[in-house]
Amino acid sequence: MTGWKRYFPVFDWGRGYNRKTLGNDMLAAAIVTIMLIPQSLAYALLAGLPPQAGLYASIVPIMLYAAFGTSRALAVGPVAVVSLMTAAAVSRLAEPGSEQYATLALTLALMSGVMLLAMGLFRLGFIANFLSHPVVSGFIMASAILIATSQLKHILGVSASGHTLPEMLTSIYNGLGGLHWPTVVIGVGSVAFLSWVRKGAGPQLARFGLPSAMARTAPIFAVAITIGLAFALDLGAGGMELVGHVPAGLPPLTIPDFSPDVWTALVGSAAIISIIGFVESASVAQTLAAKKRQRIDPDQELIALGAANAGAAFSGGYPVTGGFARSVVNFDAGAETPAAGAYTALGLALASLTITPLIAYLPVATLAATIIVAVLSLVDTHILRESWQYSKSDFAAIAATIGVTLIGGVEAGVLTGVGLSILMHLYKTSKPHMAIVGQVPGTEHFRNIERHAVITDPSVLTLRVDESLYFANARYLEDRLYAMVAERDQLKHVILMCPAVNAIDFSALESLEEINRRLSDLDIKMHLSEVKGPVMDRLKRSDLLDNLTGEIFLSQHAAICALSGLRDSKEALCDD
Amino acid sequence: MTGWKRYFPVFDWGRGYNRKTLGNDMLAAAIVTIMLIPQSLAYALLAGLPPQAGLYASIVPIMLYAAFGTSRALAVGPVAVVSLMTAAAVSRLAEPGSEQYATLALTLALMSGVMLLAMGLFRLGFIANFLSHPVVSGFIMASAILIATSQLKHILGVSASGHTLPEMLTSIYNGLGGLHWPTVVIGVGSVAFLSWVRKGAGPQLARFGLPSAMARTAPIFAVAITIGLAFALDLGAGGMELVGHVPAGLPPLTIPDFSPDVWTALVGSAAIISIIGFVESASVAQTLAAKKRQRIDPDQELIALGAANAGAAFSGGYPVTGGFARSVVNFDAGAETPAAGAYTALGLALASLTITPLIAYLPVATLAATIIVAVLSLVDTHILRESWQYSKSDFAAIAATIGVTLIGGVEAGVLTGVGLSILMHLYKTSKPHMAIVGQVPGTEHFRNIERHAVITDPSVLTLRVDESLYFANARYLEDRLYAMVAERDQLKHVILMCPAVNAIDFSALESLEEINRRLSDLDIKMHLSEVKGPVMDRLKRSDLLDNLTGEIFLSQHAAICALSGLRDSKEALCDD
Repeated sequence: MTGWKRYFPVFDWGRGYNRKTLGNDMLAAAIVTIMLIPQSLAYALLAGLPPQAGLYASIVPIMLYAAFGTSRALAVGPVAVVSLMTAAAVSRLAEPGSEQYATLALTLALMSGVMLLAMGLFRLGFIANFLSHPVVSGFIMASAILIATSQLKHILGVSASGHTLPEMLTSIYNGLGGLHWPTVVIGVGSVAFLSWVRKGAGPQLARFGLPSAMARTAPIFAVAITIGLAFALDLGAGGMELVGHVPAGLPPLTIPDFSPDVWTALVGSAAIISIIGFVESASVAQTLAAKKRQRIDPDQELIALGAANAGAAFSGGYPVTGGFARSVVNFDAGAETPAAGAYTALGLALASLTITPLIAYLPVATLAATIIVAVLSLVDTHILRESWQYSKSDFAAIAATIGVTLIGGVEAGVLTGVGLSILMHLYKTSKPHMAIVGQVPGTEHFRNIERHAVITDPSVLTLRVDESLYFANARYLEDRLYAMVAERDQLKHVILMCPAVNAIDFSALESLEEINRRLSDLDIKMHLSEVKGPVMDRLKRSDLLDNLTGEIFLSQHAAICALSGLRDSKEALCDD
Repeated sequence: MTGWKRYFPVFDWGRGYNRKTLGNDMLAAAIVTIMLIPQSLAYALLAGLPPQAGLYASIVPIMLYAAFGTSRALAVGPVAVVSLMTAAAVSRLAEPGSEQYATLALTLALMSGVMLLAMGLFRLGFIANFLSHPVVSGFIMASAILIATSQLKHILGVSASGHTLPEMLTSIYNGLGGLHWPTVVIGVGSVAFLSWVRKGAGPQLARFGLPSAMARTAPIFAVAITIGLAFALDLGAGGMELVGHVPAGLPPLTIPDFSPDVWTALVGSAAIISIIGFVESASVAQTLAAKKRQRIDPDQELIALGAANAGAAFSGGYPVTGGFARSVVNFDAGAETPAAGAYTALGLALASLTITPLIAYLPVATLAATIIVAVLSLVDTHILRESWQYSKSDFAAIAATIGVTLIGGVEAGVLTGVGLSILMHLYKTSKPHMAIVGQVPGTEHFRNIERHAVITDPSVLTLRVDESLYFANARYLEDRLYAMVAERDQLKHVILMCPAVNAIDFSALESLEEINRRLSDLDIKMHLSEVKGPVMDRLKRSDLLDNLTGEIFLSQHAAICALSGLRDSKEALCDD
């Protein structure tokens, strides 16, 4: 794909489209549509928006992703974590439920769309790499706990508020006096039913030859049954919170807020939502593509998600991304091309035209139950155990991300995780492993003098550095080297052995020049050995090689044979 | 040195103290004292403080450094860049010249002292490594330009203000109408005299057998001559700005502000001043120590600078650090131990008791001239040229640091430089060099298939990664590897060749586990070859080795002989 077509993968997969692909895509779309109706309503609730916003956010964005996306199975729409982040960002500026709140959610979607598009067009997808996988896992785990807790009040029928775990728990505890028992029955019953289906129904369906992905349609049954109960028993009159009037119709044309003040207030949140959304979406897309030896193009994915979010902004939605659950269901149900997404969008459009009168009787507790069951599957503690075992510092980053997310909120949590990962990486590489090496007798190998019986010459110091040299460790190298030199009176030659030095940045170059100068003052020559090709190419652009008091040797053995008194020893093998 | 004595290097060098050392230290102290009198007054002016604050800041801090410091020649006191940063930080909160301003400067010194002490006790000196050398050079260059510009008004006798280059230049331009010609004569004359001495006097003194460091005492002559002129011609009455009344006396006991609001407002500035001060001081100390094969201990240096700053806070000073010019003069004049610093402190104490009546007649233009001549020697553009040649991205970091410092001020400049260095490092390592390798026929060597004529087997893919694997590049490795696998139908084995992988963090471990899982789904085995000892030790703590579908080979050659159809080829040398 070249030229403008490169931005429209639809021209790629569209050419091979046939009757069989159509059939598979339609079946997958039907299953996903049924799964998405309650999920979309529920996530809109989580985001603090009217339920139809969830349906709208699933229609236009899905179609735009189908045109621009490179994943064959990714399903785009509202997801739990992004809904929570939207609520956290927008509720700082407006009252949930108000018109202004909805407009700010649209604005957030537009800003996120613009940022994702820009990152895609300028090929800045690498920014997402700064979110380490453990940090993302920790963040999602903590978000899931926050989300589940935020829904407890709907299941218990109490009024509560707050955005952090301590706030919410205190608030729910204080509200326990107002427990509404019919709500508890509906809510806890739905959680129990949905958990049972999630665990047990897949294999049962498989026994009857049905796709196990159909188990994911269970929420629609919970919805249908509780609507029936609410209508028959008039539970709304008994004080149960129902969804209430939802206007029927296709997604409306909506206009986000363009005032600079609003954009300034939301820019940080939009950036975090964009990056978290992209990371989540790309990892789902990558997983599914790899299963079929297909590829996704991360930069094109940014463009597709950007288009989807911009679309959400102008069609009554809020920030969207590729969701894990819906994409896996889409994949398992046999979707072969992004067209399955387009059919899903049609299905949801039909639903939003027809079923809204029924939704009025839907207990909010049912939606809360679908959210709780969905997000609790994201809580996975194996990463804590494994990271503890592998590396205490990585564990600390994950634990800090989880703790700060729970107590300080989602944005503080993400920023803590990213900051800690970067600091720890810099710290670890700032004191690189280095070893003084000597020759293994009778071989051309050189090993750490502390671990092996090797031969050395007091007039030659060979230091092997096991790390790229850059600003964070350049001074450490200087410090260590000067300390070693200060201890050795007979020293005439220092050899830096560089087989593991993959790069030398300008700071490190300056340190090497300084080392060369200072050793020269002490009548010690500095040499380099086993410098890699790309590193050497770059050093040739500097003055170091001209000013170097010593030489550059292709191998450490050649260096020792040229410089050391050892060359006369038989064991050094300098026989030439 | 062990136990508590380790924190008092004075017990180390004090034992060898004798008459000869005393003589050398006294001579050096005399020269440094004469140099420091005008410099201290001038830097206090730059910091927005009364002139005596500069003298006070040179007395107690020098003595504390002598007790705690590990450098034999470092001279601690007010320096240009830290004075500028003090002015930038404190003038946001109080009017220069006011009592509150002076108290805030004391507070800044105390906070800086506490931070440096804490960094030293907790061995956090590595934090300074995050300030790359080019960024520091660029920052100091830009600060020097800011400082010189800020003194122009004193030389021209105009009133002007501002903290950034555009502000100051505009303000001076608008004030040019009020040019005061006698001030211009004194100011420009002093600049010319001092520049001439700095360039030409050293060799002349050497011809007469005098230490060339004595040339650094020239400012005291400029001071003496212009005091004489101002007194004789009563220049003060003619409108020239003179230093005015300075109280005679030893450093007073002063109490910094302890209110939490003030500490909150200054904490960021104190952190930046501490780190910049430490980096400047440590690099001077390191340079001088290396010349005599001596060592400095960076963590102990932090403690010594912390004590010096805390001392400045309680004795009428402001933030101090080890200065380049004064330390080099101290070293060149023959100082052998930190005792030279103590004698300098005594000399300055004597001066502040006796010479203050004379200082009243000192033209401010003379002090401004000493500052301008001192800082312009810090402007050194070779780093721009060299970094441009070596690496465009390092050049960009330096240029951005300089630009932001000039236009946005010192703190914004430092933060920009640090942020850009870190981002660029992450970016560069986020797309590591990796090569598909094949065997060089008839050898056991493996080389990049794109650069060498090598033999490969279509069922085996060997990828050599030339970088440590960590969160910023783990996903890139996955992306690249899946793309390679998607292109190769006959693939049965993937070998990751790791001779340049110095570390694998938890993110990268998870990526490797994921790669292993996905390749397993495609019936491809994953192997590792040439894994380094420390990396292997850590991998043993994870589940990867248990779940690995393939094997771990000590050498790539062993891997090829075990896995590939090439083992039957004579050229592969698998003769065993």
